[in-house]
Amino acid sequence: MSAATPGWLADVKFDEKGLIPAISQDAQSGQILMVAWMNAESLAETAQTGRAVFWSRSRKRLWRKGEESGHVQRLIELRLDCDGDVLLLKVEQIGDIACHTGRASCFYRRLEHAADPHASNWVIVDPVLKDPELIYK
Amino acid sequence: MSAATPGWLADVKFDEKGLIPAISQDAQSGQILMVAWMNAESLAETAQTGRAVFWSRSRKRLWRKGEESGHVQRLIELRLDCDGDVLLLKVEQIGDIACHTGRASCFYRRLEHAADPHASNWVIVDPVLKDPELIYK
Repeated sequence: MSAATPGWLADVKFDEKGLIPAISQDAQSGQILMVAWMNAESLAETAQTGRAVFWSRSRKRLWRKGEESGHVQRLIELRLDCDGDVLLLKVEQIGDIACHTGRASCFYRRLEHAADPHASNWVIVDPVLKDPELIYK
Repeated sequence: MSAATPGWLADVKFDEKGLIPAISQDAQSGQILMVAWMNAESLAETAQTGRAVFWSRSRKRLWRKGEESGHVQRLIELRLDCDGDVLLLKVEQIGDIACHTGRASCFYRRLEHAADPHASNWVIVDPVLKDPELIYK
């Protein structure tokens, strides 16, 4: 971190890769939408612009959420946990879809417990709201 | 993973350290309580016993949440995200305190935006419900 790093940003503990997990939560309903990763640059831009910006680990570049889909997340509130190593973004989700599968939330699979734990299964419990082919044209 | 690994557990993508981040959310209020890490063993025990068990990275051992404080988390629902690399536990938080600081949630610091981003600051916005010295006797 340079001497120009703001104090609030210096309080954030990035991991050995320079990243921190960030939870997006719908500010109104409380629904957890997704978890992505931020580096210092994406966090600073998020705080400055009020729009969620992440670090795409697969594409190795800044990922301005909604840049392709239009499903931008407007930042309502930014929180930091006690250890300083997880961020919580309370957001307004434009288009009501956060997941690339066209669902409201990425957490659409629920464990269905069987009496024999080996027979338990992940079950899709949330609907696709919009065909991803229509989202990513 | 051994041949005896249940299919649902094989669907979970642990990172290069064998860990996955797990969000605890109050099943009733939707409040995000904390984020901790799980390995395969702690996840299997959580699913089997219905009590949140994590992997403590600092102590390098299983951490049965509430083992010292009594602030156990009862699992109501377990979810997995689209990439299979983040878990969401909807829980009942016994004692209404998840954080070691004696607060309901670990996310008790909110960024207070200043006109000059360098002057923004993390502000504590949630009260201590119980003195940690009384929790960890």
